[in-house]
Amino acid sequence: MIKASILGSTGYAGIELIRLLHAHPNVKIQHMISQTYNGKALSEVYPNFLSVSDDICVDKEPAEIAEQSDIVFVSLPHGVSAETVKKLRQGKCRVIDLSGDFRYKAVSTYEKWYNMKHPYPDMLNESIYGLPELYKEQIKAANLIANPGCYTTCSILGLAPLVSEKIIDPDSIIIDAKSGASGAGRSVSLNLHFCEVNENIKAYGVTTHRHTSEIEQELSLLSGKEISLSFTPHLLPIKRGILCTMYANLTDSVSHNYIYDMYSDFYRNKPFIHICKEGILPEVKFVNGSNRCHIGFAVDRRLNRIVVVSAIDNLIKGAGGQAIQNMNIMFGFDETTALTQPGWYL
Amino acid sequence: MIKASILGSTGYAGIELIRLLHAHPNVKIQHMISQTYNGKALSEVYPNFLSVSDDICVDKEPAEIAEQSDIVFVSLPHGVSAETVKKLRQGKCRVIDLSGDFRYKAVSTYEKWYNMKHPYPDMLNESIYGLPELYKEQIKAANLIANPGCYTTCSILGLAPLVSEKIIDPDSIIIDAKSGASGAGRSVSLNLHFCEVNENIKAYGVTTHRHTSEIEQELSLLSGKEISLSFTPHLLPIKRGILCTMYANLTDSVSHNYIYDMYSDFYRNKPFIHICKEGILPEVKFVNGSNRCHIGFAVDRRLNRIVVVSAIDNLIKGAGGQAIQNMNIMFGFDETTALTQPGWYL
Amino acid sequence: MIKASILGSTGYAGIELIRLLHAHPNVKIQHMISQTYNGKALSEVYPNFLSVSDDICVDKEPAEIAEQSDIVFVSLPHGVSAETVKKLRQGKCRVIDLSGDFRYKAVSTYEKWYNMKHPYPDMLNESIYGLPELYKEQIKAANLIANPGCYTTCSILGLAPLVSEKIIDPDSIIIDAKSGASGAGRSVSLNLHFCEVNENIKAYGVTTHRHTSEIEQELSLLSGKEISLSFTPHLLPIKRGILCTMYANLTDSVSHNYIYDMYSDFYRNKPFIHICKEGILPEVKFVNGSNRCHIGFAVDRRLNRIVVVSAIDNLIKGAGGQAIQNMNIMFGFDETTALTQPGWYL
Amino acid sequence: MIKASILGSTGYAGIELIRLLHAHPNVKIQHMISQTYNGKALSEVYPNFLSVSDDICVDKEPAEIAEQSDIVFVSLPHGVSAETVKKLRQGKCRVIDLSGDFRYKAVSTYEKWYNMKHPYPDMLNESIYGLPELYKEQIKAANLIANPGCYTTCSILGLAPLVSEKIIDPDSIIIDAKSGASGAGRSVSLNLHFCEVNENIKAYGVTTHRHTSEIEQELSLLSGKEISLSFTPHLLPIKRGILCTMYANLTDSVSHNYIYDMYSDFYRNKPFIHICKEGILPEVKFVNGSNRCHIGFAVDRRLNRIVVVSAIDNLIKGAGGQAIQNMNIMFGFDETTALTQPGWYL
Repeated sequence: MIKASILGSTGYAGIELIRLLHAHPNVKIQHMISQTYNGKALSEVYPNFLSVSDDICVDKEPAEIAEQSDIVFVSLPHGVSAETVKKLRQGKCRVIDLSGDFRYKAVSTYEKWYNMKHPYPDMLNESIYGLPELYKEQIKAANLIANPGCYTTCSILGLAPLVSEKIIDPDSIIIDAKSGASGAGRSVSLNLHFCEVNENIKAYGVTTHRHTSEIEQELSLLSGKEISLSFTPHLLPIKRGILCTMYANLTDSVSHNYIYDMYSDFYRNKPFIHICKEGILPEVKFVNGSNRCHIGFAVDRRLNRIVVVSAIDNLIKGAGGQAIQNMNIMFGFDETTALTQPGWYL
Repeated sequence: MIKASILGSTGYAGIELIRLLHAHPNVKIQHMISQTYNGKALSEVYPNFLSVSDDICVDKEPAEIAEQSDIVFVSLPHGVSAETVKKLRQGKCRVIDLSGDFRYKAVSTYEKWYNMKHPYPDMLNESIYGLPELYKEQIKAANLIANPGCYTTCSILGLAPLVSEKIIDPDSIIIDAKSGASGAGRSVSLNLHFCEVNENIKAYGVTTHRHTSEIEQELSLLSGKEISLSFTPHLLPIKRGILCTMYANLTDSVSHNYIYDMYSDFYRNKPFIHICKEGILPEVKFVNGSNRCHIGFAVDRRLNRIVVVSAIDNLIKGAGGQAIQNMNIMFGFDETTALTQPGWYL
Repeated sequence: MIKASILGSTGYAGIELIRLLHAHPNVKIQHMISQTYNGKALSEVYPNFLSVSDDICVDKEPAEIAEQSDIVFVSLPHGVSAETVKKLRQGKCRVIDLSGDFRYKAVSTYEKWYNMKHPYPDMLNESIYGLPELYKEQIKAANLIANPGCYTTCSILGLAPLVSEKIIDPDSIIIDAKSGASGAGRSVSLNLHFCEVNENIKAYGVTTHRHTSEIEQELSLLSGKEISLSFTPHLLPIKRGILCTMYANLTDSVSHNYIYDMYSDFYRNKPFIHICKEGILPEVKFVNGSNRCHIGFAVDRRLNRIVVVSAIDNLIKGAGGQAIQNMNIMFGFDETTALTQPGWYL
Repeated sequence: MIKASILGSTGYAGIELIRLLHAHPNVKIQHMISQTYNGKALSEVYPNFLSVSDDICVDKEPAEIAEQSDIVFVSLPHGVSAETVKKLRQGKCRVIDLSGDFRYKAVSTYEKWYNMKHPYPDMLNESIYGLPELYKEQIKAANLIANPGCYTTCSILGLAPLVSEKIIDPDSIIIDAKSGASGAGRSVSLNLHFCEVNENIKAYGVTTHRHTSEIEQELSLLSGKEISLSFTPHLLPIKRGILCTMYANLTDSVSHNYIYDMYSDFYRNKPFIHICKEGILPEVKFVNGSNRCHIGFAVDRRLNRIVVVSAIDNLIKGAGGQAIQNMNIMFGFDETTALTQPGWYL
């Protein structure tokens, strides 16, 4: 039984993490840290926990948290997160950070896309990018995991085999991503008001969204070549779920079967990846509620172009579920512990 | 490990039951029966099961199902259900029926509200009304459970203490119920078309909905007096969840605390019932995804009237979850097995 | 051509009023007042006006507005509204106020339910309750209209014939109301965040909502007897629309036809009221986008109780459309000018 | 006053056309043809017309319709439409057809993408593609208009200036389109069931959707070069609205201002097109309820790629509104008659 603490417990990512941890047989929740709701019962803030948990949100210093926890999940805004993680790591505690602060190899990329100075660039060497389908071995021994973003996870998983096997033109990649509103978190904003979101769809952050750089970094590493790509996020009138529709020109005239086998090989023994058979494409209702990523594709013979569609639950495989998957690997639990449930569909 | 089969596997109630059974440590799914999808993989019909289950939907005779199963869940339309349950029971198999066919004490009530002759009125003596909060002892030994309807469960649980303790005028009860669209099942219908449901709300079955009679039967039994009441269902643009807002005149000038204690006593040791503290009222997002029923109320001093609000997930506590709760009791498992998860909130 | 100004232009009620006024052949929009967006183009705040209107939001003193306008619509929070209306009326300008500040006959009722001192109780004598179906004659000559609330309009219109004709027990009235989120306005609030509202329903203000007192006042006036009633509002995951489901005990055993004729007589020559034939009940998609109120009902013979269902678009008949209807009557235009469009359905 | 008849009155496109025609000062609705609802009042099928219209749906032979109408709108399935239009044209009646049957220059394109033989290929010479922003002159004298599809209108309008001015690589065009469910019509289908659509998004018809060929035809004509492109439609949980996100590689390093001016010139005096200023991108809530098309774009300097976003209301500019715009041009009415209203926003 390990002791886990959560910072930023009462955001949407934090609360989903807590919900999932409740079903984990090897984890005891040590501290739920919340500055906003310090002293309040979790079930007051999220009444789905009424009669389930009597736990109280607290506010504690990082040093104390670090001392009393085997693992700390940090779900705070970038910048704030870096400062907190620094203190937690001084306390020798293993950390899974859900912000963008430790996801970059090159501090310059971070500073350019986040438009701020990184306070602890040295820590980028220590951190491991927590996408278990790519970095499982490094995650095992890691002390600091940079848990990937939701758009990023969905995009990278969908494209990794193609760039890795070099069967697409890396300059032709376009990612058109659609996300539920929970991805924007629980902070109030007119843009997230029900009347502004329902019966609407909009693109945002076009050509400038930070996740672009994270996707480019990882695909470049897989490809061995610098990749730049278009990434366009859209806000949907749904709570959960991300669907990425991705386009790239094929460099060879390969068959659907060939590509299907390539994906299947690439993700062999990856318990959360499902490659869809020909004619089936992912939908968010297939994955919402689960830690799975569904990937499907169609080959456009006319244009010699591939269209890949991938889907995840942004709050699970795109945040809390993936964080637990990383924790499972770090502590030698079965990778799927507490994460085996199928999606809800309804 | 008991063997469970499901008839009507691919309806919304059936599939939710299967989703929940997947997490049950003491149950093996023996047969998933579906006439519509006979021979198809479950994951073809509900792709949230891709990479989770390779099970195939089959079509088998009731006799064979009965022989090979310890428990059979029947999620079929009323009338059809009666015939099937009859055959299953001839095979000595224990049955949990989700239709209205075996919920009535008086065959005349069934025949009046369902407007059809009951084929096996004698079986009404055998069947137990599967609302565990009221009939746990009888359920233990039951061979045939009539699993209550979704509106019914939410309404009865909300009102039971009041009628049982006789602190309301039983002629004054009004139930205004609001349900998600999954309650109407998966059969296609223009009324359930997205463009007809979204950004809309409507009342239906006003003064004539069948669940009225089921609620009246159970409240009358609790009260020891014949109760007739108004029940008005509404269709909401949500997938899941039922909220009942219920009104009754108080016969005495009792305090909120008095009533709170009365509810708490009535539901002592009922693991799925939560009585909300003063000032808190249930919302469907608090219970969706869980087998819980939240109940809250406000006392209107001006009018000496009580307003009770109760909420359940219609597919769980209102269908498949309650069926599993009944099964747990019948087979001596802990009542909460596979049903402990909190609601999703998001 | 009359000159109309709007205070609180950029709230949801204000903007809907402006949208409707754009199609009014006898009205020129003089000033759109907005403190928040002073100096900004309307189309910057609401881009549906791009290429439609180049008008700029301004901030001006009430005295100046009054001098330059024939009619001023005030869509401000209560309290703030009273102060502004006072100044506008000093300038001799006719005013339609959409707040609760001038809706009450008895200042004590206002002060009790709004929990504040009324600054200008004398003005209550001057103001006319702007429900044209009841007060058309008084509205013609009025200088100050108190435009009714959205819940209130829907409830009163649905019940007025019954209380007026005294065929129900006035102590038995229960109003269960359901509203879209736009009724709560555009101010940001966690409660109105998309992720908190979608796939949810909740009751709020149970036993304490201010509109209760407004409904009671008007029904009491119609009945000639003090009426107290239950009113329970609910927040729905829809943008627009209100549905009220209302219950009352019939004092006589009257037929559906009798009541239908009674409603039809009561609303003879009221162009925006539609009484539904037996078997049809209103839905919000029938009225959204229009200034109409649909009213239907079912008689419960078993219980000798009537269930009335009424529906309006909260932003039109419940706010801006009704304000225009009042203006039309005040200025001698045809009552339906700019308000003839049918609902959208889709 | 011209006489207009509608075939397929009670589908979503038909009913929206009727709703808009109700506000047209120069049009009398002659016949509303519906086989399904022959003899029923319009207001029985769409109760938003209660107290608005007493018109009855009828079923008549095309010859009779043609004789009694100045213009006939045909909103029938492809194939069926061709047969009906043939008969209407024999009667000398002018026709606006909303199906795909007469949209193609080359019958072979139609036959390949619609997978059926065209019964009257000669009529393709007679028909004019009813996109008034491109073909206004030809529309004036046309007797047969092929009203463009909804996806098509949104895509072509967004890309026309770029291909016409040849500042993009025509082989690099990718259209990622998102549509509300009304685009699929009112026929019942499990795929359009509320519980299958809400809180979901999916791609469909990937690489094979028929509208691809229609977009390619029109862009090729504008470009003077054969254009092939990727078009991927998605089904959103909204009723109305289409958003197209479109990508193409720029052939030159042109500025945002340059392109903005190019668009503005191209659409000079086109009353329904709005080109968004830098930093603003269309959303469906800006155009829903109107006949407008909003177009915005971002230039990605890093990649020398343009991302264009366009939005329309699929039922108005994408169907019935555009049909009225065509009719206005054909009969010499002001192009904007009955189509001036701004979008609803809410």
